[in-house]
Amino acid sequence: MNLVSTTPRLVVDVDVLQANIERAAESARTRGLALRPHVKTHKSPDLARLQLAAGASGLTVATIGEAEVFAAAGFDDLFIAYPLWTDDAAVARLQRLAAQVRLAIGCDSVQSVAELPSGVAELMIELDSGHHRSGIAAGTAGELAARLLASGQVVRGVFTFPGHSYAPGAAAEVAVDEASALLDAADGLRSAGVPDPLLSGGSTPSLAFADDRLSEYRPGVYVFNDAQQWELGTCTPEQIALTCHARVVSRHADRVVLDAGSKVLGADRALYATGAGRLLDDPDARIVQLSEHHAVVTAPVLPALGSIVRVVPNHVCNAVNLADRLHLVDPDGSRAGSWVVAARGRNS
Amino acid sequence: MNLVSTTPRLVVDVDVLQANIERAAESARTRGLALRPHVKTHKSPDLARLQLAAGASGLTVATIGEAEVFAAAGFDDLFIAYPLWTDDAAVARLQRLAAQVRLAIGCDSVQSVAELPSGVAELMIELDSGHHRSGIAAGTAGELAARLLASGQVVRGVFTFPGHSYAPGAAAEVAVDEASALLDAADGLRSAGVPDPLLSGGSTPSLAFADDRLSEYRPGVYVFNDAQQWELGTCTPEQIALTCHARVVSRHADRVVLDAGSKVLGADRALYATGAGRLLDDPDARIVQLSEHHAVVTAPVLPALGSIVRVVPNHVCNAVNLADRLHLVDPDGSRAGSWVVAARGRNS
Repeated sequence: MNLVSTTPRLVVDVDVLQANIERAAESARTRGLALRPHVKTHKSPDLARLQLAAGASGLTVATIGEAEVFAAAGFDDLFIAYPLWTDDAAVARLQRLAAQVRLAIGCDSVQSVAELPSGVAELMIELDSGHHRSGIAAGTAGELAARLLASGQVVRGVFTFPGHSYAPGAAAEVAVDEASALLDAADGLRSAGVPDPLLSGGSTPSLAFADDRLSEYRPGVYVFNDAQQWELGTCTPEQIALTCHARVVSRHADRVVLDAGSKVLGADRALYATGAGRLLDDPDARIVQLSEHHAVVTAPVLPALGSIVRVVPNHVCNAVNLADRLHLVDPDGSRAGSWVVAARGRNS
Repeated sequence: MNLVSTTPRLVVDVDVLQANIERAAESARTRGLALRPHVKTHKSPDLARLQLAAGASGLTVATIGEAEVFAAAGFDDLFIAYPLWTDDAAVARLQRLAAQVRLAIGCDSVQSVAELPSGVAELMIELDSGHHRSGIAAGTAGELAARLLASGQVVRGVFTFPGHSYAPGAAAEVAVDEASALLDAADGLRSAGVPDPLLSGGSTPSLAFADDRLSEYRPGVYVFNDAQQWELGTCTPEQIALTCHARVVSRHADRVVLDAGSKVLGADRALYATGAGRLLDDPDARIVQLSEHHAVVTAPVLPALGSIVRVVPNHVCNAVNLADRLHLVDPDGSRAGSWVVAARGRNS
C-alpha cells in the first residue's frame, strides 16, 4: 500500500471500491430490486458514474443543492429523499431541475408542498418504519396520497429510511419493519388511486435483508464502508475502501497522537462505537480521544513516531463532506489522481 | 431578529460577536496577559481583524494551511500551536511562511523537528497539563529545550492546552494545573538557557481563571460561544453569537424535524451535553437525534411546521468548518453580508 506523505488526507482504494459497488449491485439484482444509490455518501459524479455503469437505476440525493450538482454532471433521474419545504426559492430551483431530469421529492405533509405547482416533481410519501425521524405512519399514507392527488400533485409511491438498522444485530428485524410499512402503505395508495406505487427502502446495514417485494433500494455507505459498518458486522475490514492517512505526531508511554481529528474524520460516535474511528491495520488499537486535529490512540503495540497509519472514520458520509477531494490509490500504486467532492457542503 | 429563509445556514449576530471580542480582550488585559486568539474557530480574516483591533497580540492557528491563509491576508505574527512533523514538504512551506511573518510552531520531541533548518521558526515546547493529548511533562521541558538548543533551534517558550477544562465545574482547578505546568517548565527552560521563556496557555472555559503570571492566552471559541460553553456555564445564551437558522420540515405529535443535521452543525456530543445542540429561543427543547440532514427535537411546545428556529451547535469550531460563508445579521436587521470561511478544510 502506497501511503501518502501529506497528512491527513482521505484516500480511496479503487479496487475495494469497485468490488463494493459490484457486490451491492448483485445483491439488489438477485432480489429483483432496482438500486438507486444515495450519493450523499460520496458527493462525487466520478464515483456515481461507476454506480450507474454497474446497473444503478438512478440516484438518490438529500438536498436540492446535491440534485443541482448531479443534474449539471449529466445524471437524469434523481430522487431528493427528503421532506422538502417548498417555498418560492425552492420551487424556482425545483422547476429548473425538472427541466433537466426526471425528478421526485419526499413529502410527509400537505403543507410542505402547498406552494409547489402541480407536476413539477413526482411526490414520494415518506413513512416512519421505526426510526422516528421524519415520515408518517404507514396506515395514514393513503389518506395523505388522496389529499395530494386532490390538490393536483402526482404521487409516485412511498419511501422510508430504516435508520434503526444502525444498532448491533438489528438489521434483519428492521428489514421486516421496513417491508411491512411499505407494503401496508402501498395498499393505501392503491385505494387512493395510485395503481402501481413505487416502494423505496434502504440503508446499508439492511441491504442484505431487503424484501424482494420492494421496488428499489437506496443504500449509500456501502461504496466505502466505515468503522460503523465494520463494528455493526455489515462489512469486513477488507471491504473498507476509504481511509484517512494520518501521521503519528506525538508519542508517549501509553499513547500516540495522530494528526487526524474531527475536522477530517467527523465527530460521529454512535453508542455502540468502540472509539472515534478505527485503525485499519490494527484492530486492537482504540481511538480514545478526538479533538479537531488530534486523535489519541492506545494500542498493545504503539506505532512509531513519524509513521503513517490508515484511520477508518466512524461515519464516512460526514468525513467525505469535510474534504474537497478524495485521493485515489490501488494496492499496486499504479493508479493515481483524485475525485472532486463536487457537492461538498451543499446542505440546501 | 431577521431569520433567513434559505435554510440551513450559519448566521452571526455581529453585535453579540463584538461584545464577546471586547469582553475577552478586557479579561486578558486586566490580568496583564497578551491575547493571541485561536482562529481555528472562525477561519475568517474578516473576523480576525476585529480581534486585532481589540488588542490581540497575534494569532494562533492549528495547521500550516491555516497559517498560509492568514499570512496571505496580511497577519504578521502567527503561532502554529501544534506539534508539526516537519518533513521536506512541511519545511518548504514553513520557510515560505517565515519569509512573511514572525512564526512559531509547537514541538514535543527532538525527532519532529529533526529536518527543520535552524531558525526557520521559533519553537514552543508543548506541555501536557492534564488533558493527556500531545505534550510532555513539565518537569522534562528543560531537558528537551537543552537538546533543541544544542541542535541549533530557537526555543521561545512553552505552551499547553488545558482541554480538561471541558467538564462541568472543572475550569478553575484546571487553570491551576495549567499555571503550575507552565511555571514549572519555565524554571527548566531558564536552566537550559532560555532566559525569558514565553508562557502560553488557554482555552475558553479557563479564560476567566487564567493565572496572571502567564504571558499570553489562546482561547478560540469565545468569539461565538456555543452549546458546550452554554452547558458548561462559560457563557449565557445571550452571549451566543452564531446560530444555524433551520426550518421545521416535519411535525409529529411528539417531535419536530429540522433541516439542520450533522453536515451543518457537526456531530460533536460531549458526555455532559443534553443533546446534539440547543435551540437558542427555547432552553427546554432537546435535540434528541441528529442525522446528516435532520435534527429531531422534542419540546414542551413544539414549533410550527414551516417555521424557522435558531440552533446553537454543540461545538462551533466544527460547525464553521462545514460552511463556506458565515452570514451576518444584527438585531435590527440593518447590517448584512457574509464572511468567507477562508481556511475551511485546511487540515494540513
